[in-house]
Formats: sequence, C-alpha cells, structure tokens
Amino acid sequence: MKNEIMKVDQNQAKTKIIMHPIGIIRSPYKESRDIPIQGTFNHRVEGWIELEYKYVKGLKDLNGFSHAILIYHFHKSKRETIEGKPFLEQDKHGIFAIRSPNRPNHIGFSVVKIKSIEGNKIYFTEVDILDGTPLLDIKPYVKYFDRRDRVVSGWLDKHFKGGKVPDGTIIK
Amino acid sequence: MKNEIMKVDQNQAKTKIIMHPIGIIRSPYKESRDIPIQGTFNHRVEGWIELEYKYVKGLKDLNGFSHAILIYHFHKSKRETIEGKPFLEQDKHGIFAIRSPNRPNHIGFSVVKIKSIEGNKIYFTEVDILDGTPLLDIKPYVKYFDRRDRVVSGWLDKHFKGGKVPDGTIIK
Repeated sequence: MKNEIMKVDQNQAKTKIIMHPIGIIRSPYKESRDIPIQGTFNHRVEGWIELEYKYVKGLKDLNGFSHAILIYHFHKSKRETIEGKPFLEQDKHGIFAIRSPNRPNHIGFSVVKIKSIEGNKIYFTEVDILDGTPLLDIKPYVKYFDRRDRVVSGWLDKHFKGGKVPDGTIIK
Repeated sequence: MKNEIMKVDQNQAKTKIIMHPIGIIRSPYKESRDIPIQGTFNHRVEGWIELEYKYVKGLKDLNGFSHAILIYHFHKSKRETIEGKPFLEQDKHGIFAIRSPNRPNHIGFSVVKIKSIEGNKIYFTEVDILDGTPLLDIKPYVKYFDRRDRVVSGWLDKHFKGGKVPDGTIIK
C-alpha cells in the first residue's frame, strides 16, 4: 500500500541505529582548539588506535595499504546545528558543506597515513582527531574509489589558493 | 537533537551511540549483486538523496563542491565477520582491509559526484549504493583533506593494474 511506504519513509528519522566503539583514538590533541590545520599534513605528529582485542584479526592485510579511513564519533560535541561558521570564515554555510562536529549524528571522518600496526595498535600520521575519540570503523583507503581528480572544493578553494595551507585551527 | 551517548561502563565496546537516518538514498540497484564495480565510475547511472525536510537548510553552499562524501548504514547486512573474501579474490582479508558491509557497525562510505541539488533532493553519479539505504551524514569532499597522492592500495592494486577496472560486482 502506497501510504504504508510513505509512512515508513517519513519515519526514517525515528529509526534508531545503535553503534558501539571498536576502539579508541589516541592523539596529542586534548582540545579541539589544539588541532592545527597544518597538523593534518604534519608527519611528525603521531596518533594511534587502541583497537578492542576481539577485532585484532580484522586488521589482517591492512598493512598493505598506505592510508586508512577512520570513522569516529565526535563525542565532545553536544549540540547539533544546521548552519555554521567554519574557523576560516565569517560566512555561514550549511552543516553539510562544512566539516564541523556539531552535525546530525556527530560522525567524524579522516584519512590518515598508516605508519605501523603492532598487535591491537595502529600508529598513524596526518592526525586531526581529539585524544580519546571513540572509533567506529576502519576502512582501507582505496585510490580507485576514494581519490578523485578535477575536484572543486567550494568555499575552501580560496583559502588554499596556490597550494598554501592556511594558518589557524582546523576547520572540522 | 542532543548527542545520544549511553555509557554503560568504562568498557568502550559497551558504550551505545544512537544514530538516526537523516534521509534515504535512492539508486537503480535493488540488490547487492546488481552493483557493478564499473558502475561506480559510470556517469550515466544516477542516484539521489531524499533528505528529511528539517535538514534542507544544511545543504546551503554544498552546490559549490564537485563531490560529496556519503556515510550510510548497510541496512541489509545482518551479520558481522572479522575476515572476508572480497568478490575479486579467493584470499581472506581482515574486515578492516576490505569494504564489505558485514563489518562492525555496518557503516558504508562512498564518494559521489554531485549533479544538482533541488529542494530536499541531491542528484549524483558514481553510484555504488543500494536503493533504500538509510543516510547518516553528508560531508563536502575536500581535496586538501581527502585526496592523497602516492597511495598504495594493498591487495587491490594487482586487480587495477595498468588503469583497468575489473569486471564483476562491486567489492563493497
């Protein structure tokens, strides 16, 4: 019945999906304001994952990849906004056009460079994540799926013109 | 809506994080086996998002970006494995070295090419997602954060040697 289907669709927002951390992310950054944009590309700053022991077998062959995708929970973010001003700007953008933690579901996403994997620990650089962040997933970064050419990056492009990386704290 | 964290005790794995779909993903693919690897790069195949109306203001300025990151729930996946065989191989890899839906928390991730945004609908190509998939987040794809050079893609590289895209169904 058509009505039934519509009702299900309209109730999407009431569906609950329950997730559990698979581990915890460790980094030198104790507060959001400590995370510099340039830190993202800084190979001297290192973070690591402490994976729950029951998932260690899931790391098999991840060491063949140079980069990993981390999906995590912005656990320090207590509010949800529909628009926001990123650090670099005075203009407001929609929450889906910025990387702010104050977003629906508070899901964080970073690409990191894998340095080594030892037991339940994954050491990485290119860190822009708070210490103590609950980790939800690790995926291999696959260049055939995840890297795009001819990318236009909206309001960010003007800040990175000519290959420069802006000073200041991170936009996420 | 507040950030829903139900911490049971110190054990991370027992913490519950509750999420709600922000919309639904529409695509021509009704079953996992319908999704071809080559479909990911096929600009004729189109999908779209039906965003919950209350989030429409969050799309402001997303149209300035060529690509978006979609984070979604593999709602058809009922099991969780620690190792798996991707379609292309007979060898088993750890779940964190493959893109299988049968993973802890069942989180899916795709980069898509934005075609147009009209009201609560976002039309896109480079589709590799099942019709009816609950959407959890949309982020702008930012080349300064999300695109990496000198990427090694582990067990996948041999299948994509010389720029070819393997036949068959998708690896995710």
